Amino acid sequence: MERTYTESKKQVIRREKQKVQRALPGNTWTQREKVALACRILHSHGHESGLAGQVTARESEHGFFTQRLGCGLSEVTPSNLLSVDEELNVMEGEGAPNPANRFHAWVYRARPDVQCIVHTHPLYSSALSMLGVPLVVAHMDSCALYDNIAFLEDWPGVPVGDEEGRLISTAIGNKAGLLLAHHGVVLAGRTVEEACVLALQFERTARLFLTARSVGPVRTIPRELGLAARDWLLTPRRVDATFAYYARAELANDPRCIA
Amino acid sequence: MERTYTESKKQVIRREKQKVQRALPGNTWTQREKVALACRILHSHGHESGLAGQVTARESEHGFFTQRLGCGLSEVTPSNLLSVDEELNVMEGEGAPNPANRFHAWVYRARPDVQCIVHTHPLYSSALSMLGVPLVVAHMDSCALYDNIAFLEDWPGVPVGDEEGRLISTAIGNKAGLLLAHHGVVLAGRTVEEACVLALQFERTARLFLTARSVGPVRTIPRELGLAARDWLLTPRRVDATFAYYARAELANDPRCIA
Amino acid sequence: MERTYTESKKQVIRREKQKVQRALPGNTWTQREKVALACRILHSHGHESGLAGQVTARESEHGFFTQRLGCGLSEVTPSNLLSVDEELNVMEGEGAPNPANRFHAWVYRARPDVQCIVHTHPLYSSALSMLGVPLVVAHMDSCALYDNIAFLEDWPGVPVGDEEGRLISTAIGNKAGLLLAHHGVVLAGRTVEEACVLALQFERTARLFLTARSVGPVRTIPRELGLAARDWLLTPRRVDATFAYYARAELANDPRCIA
Amino acid sequence: MERTYTESKKQVIRREKQKVQRALPGNTWTQREKVALACRILHSHGHESGLAGQVTARESEHGFFTQRLGCGLSEVTPSNLLSVDEELNVMEGEGAPNPANRFHAWVYRARPDVQCIVHTHPLYSSALSMLGVPLVVAHMDSCALYDNIAFLEDWPGVPVGDEEGRLISTAIGNKAGLLLAHHGVVLAGRTVEEACVLALQFERTARLFLTARSVGPVRTIPRELGLAARDWLLTPRRVDATFAYYARAELANDPRCIA
Repeated sequence: MERTYTESKKQVIRREKQKVQRALPGNTWTQREKVALACRILHSHGHESGLAGQVTARESEHGFFTQRLGCGLSEVTPSNLLSVDEELNVMEGEGAPNPANRFHAWVYRARPDVQCIVHTHPLYSSALSMLGVPLVVAHMDSCALYDNIAFLEDWPGVPVGDEEGRLISTAIGNKAGLLLAHHGVVLAGRTVEEACVLALQFERTARLFLTARSVGPVRTIPRELGLAARDWLLTPRRVDATFAYYARAELANDPRCIA
Repeated sequence: MERTYTESKKQVIRREKQKVQRALPGNTWTQREKVALACRILHSHGHESGLAGQVTARESEHGFFTQRLGCGLSEVTPSNLLSVDEELNVMEGEGAPNPANRFHAWVYRARPDVQCIVHTHPLYSSALSMLGVPLVVAHMDSCALYDNIAFLEDWPGVPVGDEEGRLISTAIGNKAGLLLAHHGVVLAGRTVEEACVLALQFERTARLFLTARSVGPVRTIPRELGLAARDWLLTPRRVDATFAYYARAELANDPRCIA
Repeated sequence: MERTYTESKKQVIRREKQKVQRALPGNTWTQREKVALACRILHSHGHESGLAGQVTARESEHGFFTQRLGCGLSEVTPSNLLSVDEELNVMEGEGAPNPANRFHAWVYRARPDVQCIVHTHPLYSSALSMLGVPLVVAHMDSCALYDNIAFLEDWPGVPVGDEEGRLISTAIGNKAGLLLAHHGVVLAGRTVEEACVLALQFERTARLFLTARSVGPVRTIPRELGLAARDWLLTPRRVDATFAYYARAELANDPRCIA
Repeated sequence: MERTYTESKKQVIRREKQKVQRALPGNTWTQREKVALACRILHSHGHESGLAGQVTARESEHGFFTQRLGCGLSEVTPSNLLSVDEELNVMEGEGAPNPANRFHAWVYRARPDVQCIVHTHPLYSSALSMLGVPLVVAHMDSCALYDNIAFLEDWPGVPVGDEEGRLISTAIGNKAGLLLAHHGVVLAGRTVEEACVLALQFERTARLFLTARSVGPVRTIPRELGLAARDWLLTPRRVDATFAYYARAELANDPRCIA
């Protein structure tokens, strides 16, 4: 049982990441299916807030999939998604996009690595957004967000038009996400799976912080360990597997969600 | 992508409100059906507290629909609603109205613009009502309530008789709602949809405040932005669409709720 | 609309109580059925804590119904209840009673008015029981408990034997209930309905207090109003109707619960 | 009714424990079935956190059952469990074990009395783990954990390799469990039932503490009473019965969970 003792922790982590990457299969859902599943998963995990909350995913360099105005997270299916261009003109599908989605185009333009954006107003993240403090990451499971979430401290008001697009795409920089004061969260993923898992972790992290902090100060974690855990947790196959686990639960609950 | 940059934010908001108003359909349920749906929606979103909690909607200048004494929010249907006059005399339907509904008549008389009143005792609003402080609005989604909720600081005891009617109809003034100390909430809407959505936002706003405030002081939002967001959020078609989204979920869960 | 203005509030309350009492039907379930329904209702409203938690109801002067050891609140049916005597000897039914039920016999002996005892360890009441403070009643809906709940400040350890019976039956005095430090709640009702509704209100009251108090001091209510509300809320038909509402929900969810 | 008054409390407890032990049947599920049921029970009681969280049970001196990497708590069945040796080599079953399970082997080696290990990241325990304080036991139901939970104050980072195994197996000593800072919980039971029930109590205890402590200081309980309650609550048949109660609920909800 002492085999791994002769290796450095870094070596062990690298080897185990490779094992995980090999052992876990990738997902075979289409981009539209993944968006629909992500919407259901988020709805089931506290991201519901009426018609607020949008998931988009890149379809091409200048266009993305987005839900129809009036369609809630729990109602999105692969076939009712709209395909829109950067100006939110509908290329395919029926209905109008949410004008609040305008900032997504800004983020896609600024960040070629981003394939999917989750923007929601979940309860604990929303409560956190009222405190004027950035997200605190102090739990291993939260480390995907470690030094990975920017903070837009000032609320510019109702999110329409290009002012928000510029603000948000600037504020997020090269991080994976952004806490919007008095508003909600933005998570930008290299895949739909990653954006979804990051969003789930954001809300959980906000809840963990608020729950712990109502009792006393939260202990920080060492930076180096936080960063190593971030890399470990963002192993693509691990992220895909977590998404797939939640997706199977949604499909078991309602097989029509990607029908 | 820079088109909206040449407009003022006010212009953008006005244009986008019009787009939303055009893009979203209105609702076609009858007044009785909307009341039944509102009761189910409220029940599903934390407004349950036994037999406490009433939704009424104007039927005519001097009468309104109300639920039967002994019938809970989750049991209301279009056909078991009573039609009562200002003195709570039953005009149509079987059973007696809740005597605590007397104050609704006072509000309808004082406020010709009000078509629906939601009065409930949801958990977080009830907890807030024990603190002696007014509702704090510090999240964008809560802005429908910004400078829109009065506070009745003194609890007059059991709500029966006309004393409460006078107190409540005076205290609410021309606001959309009222926090009743040691008691609950009153939301008065221009439509059933609006009263229902305001009530959902009240409870969520109370919860956001209590959750955030248990950790530290809540940051206020600029008044001008709060008021602009209020108007944006109260765009009638937006309110109708939010109600319709929740209503579809109730109908999917139990089609009999308006049968 | 001014009719009730010529009466004193006391007169209005008395008249309205009579109206409520006339308007609402009584319940027709048997004592065994009511116990089974109470167990289900409590289980659905946060009173679950594994196999802890017992509901008993008087069958005769010297005996009562109680659930079988190993049978949880959600499993009780009219036919699997045991009929036991004061010494917990089984008169009818299969299985052994919970030895922790011994104190119920003590309460029944000391309080001829009591027909039903609910003893549970719900989450918020349990958290409150760890603070060394009595229950605070500061919401209208909680007033059934106003000046009606005693507090056993010292935890005597595992509740077996007659020591607990003597302690509890003494501490409760002529109140409707008792908060047991580090342990849970006891509610003693004049009917099964009353004990059940009091228990539901206890847990909700504890939750309201903990939620509000984590933010700031809770405002007290005037004693006279609290007592008047208590009488109003404990109108027997009102209590029966509240129980019946919850019971209908349980029966709709699982018709077998009194089969 | 005074019979037990002539005995000491210790005598009463001993006699009543024997009664409980005789009155309650043992469980007849296989070890694999118990593991699957434990996974479902934990998932239903707040232990869900994506793919984090593992339950293992000893199969023989040098091997144990563990879930497959990518399989969540709610998906474990007796037939999809892997049988692995101390080095996590798969002896039977398809798929790879979670490399984070390595520390389980260390605990089994150090503690021959342990038959089952539950390691999860439930919400309230996770929040507690961010505070830098050990678990506080101040409720009777929590006493199974009284003086029974160690605390690993420093988070060593991502849990892979043998370093964690050594740390955890040393830190737990001869206790029933361990709170891992910034990480989660470990519960080591003499049976699957015990590990599962201890884990449920851990999360509930963390929640009780956080809920109470956000309002004020938690009162401690006398050590002697805490220890006596621990023995009472860990009576094997009582633990088995509690597990069986939860298992029946899972089986009623989804009979396939041990199919």
